[in-house]
Amino acid sequence: MSDLAEALRDTAQAVEARLSTLIPETDGAAAPLYKAMRYSALGGGKRLRPFLALQSARLFDAGETGALRAAAAVELVHCYSLVHDDLPAMDDDDLRRGRPTTHIAFDEATAILAGDGLLTLAFEVLADPETHPDGDVRAALVAALARAAGMAGMVGGQMIDLAAEHRTLDLERIIELQRLKTGALIGCSCAVGAILGGADATAGAALDDYARDLGLAFQIADDLLDVEGDESQLGKGVGKDAAAGKATFVSLLGVDGARARAAGLVADAAARLDMFDSRADLLRAVAEYVINRGH
Amino acid sequence: MSDLAEALRDTAQAVEARLSTLIPETDGAAAPLYKAMRYSALGGGKRLRPFLALQSARLFDAGETGALRAAAAVELVHCYSLVHDDLPAMDDDDLRRGRPTTHIAFDEATAILAGDGLLTLAFEVLADPETHPDGDVRAALVAALARAAGMAGMVGGQMIDLAAEHRTLDLERIIELQRLKTGALIGCSCAVGAILGGADATAGAALDDYARDLGLAFQIADDLLDVEGDESQLGKGVGKDAAAGKATFVSLLGVDGARARAAGLVADAAARLDMFDSRADLLRAVAEYVINRGH
Repeated sequence: MSDLAEALRDTAQAVEARLSTLIPETDGAAAPLYKAMRYSALGGGKRLRPFLALQSARLFDAGETGALRAAAAVELVHCYSLVHDDLPAMDDDDLRRGRPTTHIAFDEATAILAGDGLLTLAFEVLADPETHPDGDVRAALVAALARAAGMAGMVGGQMIDLAAEHRTLDLERIIELQRLKTGALIGCSCAVGAILGGADATAGAALDDYARDLGLAFQIADDLLDVEGDESQLGKGVGKDAAAGKATFVSLLGVDGARARAAGLVADAAARLDMFDSRADLLRAVAEYVINRGH
Repeated sequence: MSDLAEALRDTAQAVEARLSTLIPETDGAAAPLYKAMRYSALGGGKRLRPFLALQSARLFDAGETGALRAAAAVELVHCYSLVHDDLPAMDDDDLRRGRPTTHIAFDEATAILAGDGLLTLAFEVLADPETHPDGDVRAALVAALARAAGMAGMVGGQMIDLAAEHRTLDLERIIELQRLKTGALIGCSCAVGAILGGADATAGAALDDYARDLGLAFQIADDLLDVEGDESQLGKGVGKDAAAGKATFVSLLGVDGARARAAGLVADAAARLDMFDSRADLLRAVAEYVINRGH
């Protein structure tokens, strides 16, 4: 097993355990909510964002306990966004990671509430003194995650994405959409590591630049998978963008053009981390992985 | 105009202005999101929770700027909860404060996203140094609001409420449901004032007790309005609980019994504030108002 594969597996296990503790099983009257939240957050996913958070935190020798909590918080926001995006009124997806989506496995009301609960829990986790002893650090984490997740970030991006189904976007608009919808949270994943570790402005900016290149490469790879991917391996439907007539990086650049663009971005991303020398090797490796993954 | 009426009006104006600044108008691609968020947060409501936050903060001479920001954050969470609760998959309400609900005025997807955006913005507002210079205070505000809003608070209460449509709850269960669904955020409204003002444990506990009595009285009054209220004055449909066969304080205690219970709670609530003398008169007055309001 490669170093990266091992590190990804370790992160996934640690994050899974942490999320399971944060969302307890309960037999109270609200049990279906907790069950739906656990269903939505546990048992799957590449845990890319937690991996970025943990690796970024290690660059600055931030404490592992706090880094894992921050990583879990970012993942909670990612999971909430999937639950709400999959809803019938939104992307109307029945399948996610090879399992029924939350509103299929439970019902729509429970899925809406589970998403709300996951989002809220993320901020509760960050604000807890267990995440970091310094209140200024905890508040900075909350601010960074809220900005990345909110109207000027992910939620805004999802709004633009929904609106885009009715018109054709050019490349500049697609990049802007991606920057909000997926880029902001990927950037935040690296940022929480920098915040926890008290990174200086230069190091923080280098990570920001890395995350921006990586986020864009990630989205291009996603668009490629929607065209070329194997539905059974992906665990979700493919060809949806084309069927919806949505402009994507592939429809605008072609398959070869998109692939070349993604490879260039990954090379750029790796170079952004020069100041960290070999300590950033896993961050460089995960960027390669992101554009070569099969799911 | 009574002192209370004047104070309520002043608070409503100040909160409206603050919320309008926090959710800017925009003509970008995400404009419908901002429009729906403004529609959901502006132009209505009693602003009871911001009133409680501001009055509680004044008991401890907390700064007005921070108190108003915290008050706005609590109201953002209240507004988000209304938007999501009104959705077709939840309570399926078309009318709120005499206007079409957000998913009617826009569409369901936009309403889900607007709610998500309002919830997220609340935490961004609290975490901002403008709310308080001390990071520990900001993080404590975030933690308090997240706990009140999340799975062990409002979201959990809404889950129990939805499940309750299929069975009859006894009085103890109804009180527990209310404590989560509406009580937690009312309690948090007072708590943010205490946190901002650095209240000691005794004063904080007194406010907690006041808020618990008030919150329960508020819910009983709401149940009475659902039976006795005037639809045009309420700005929303009435008789929905009875039509849904839901147990309420009125179905369990009768109209007279419910009214007596609410009056007793308001007297208790007022007495909880003895240590604050006349400085808490507006908090006592608003408790009276809550059970005598026509909407």
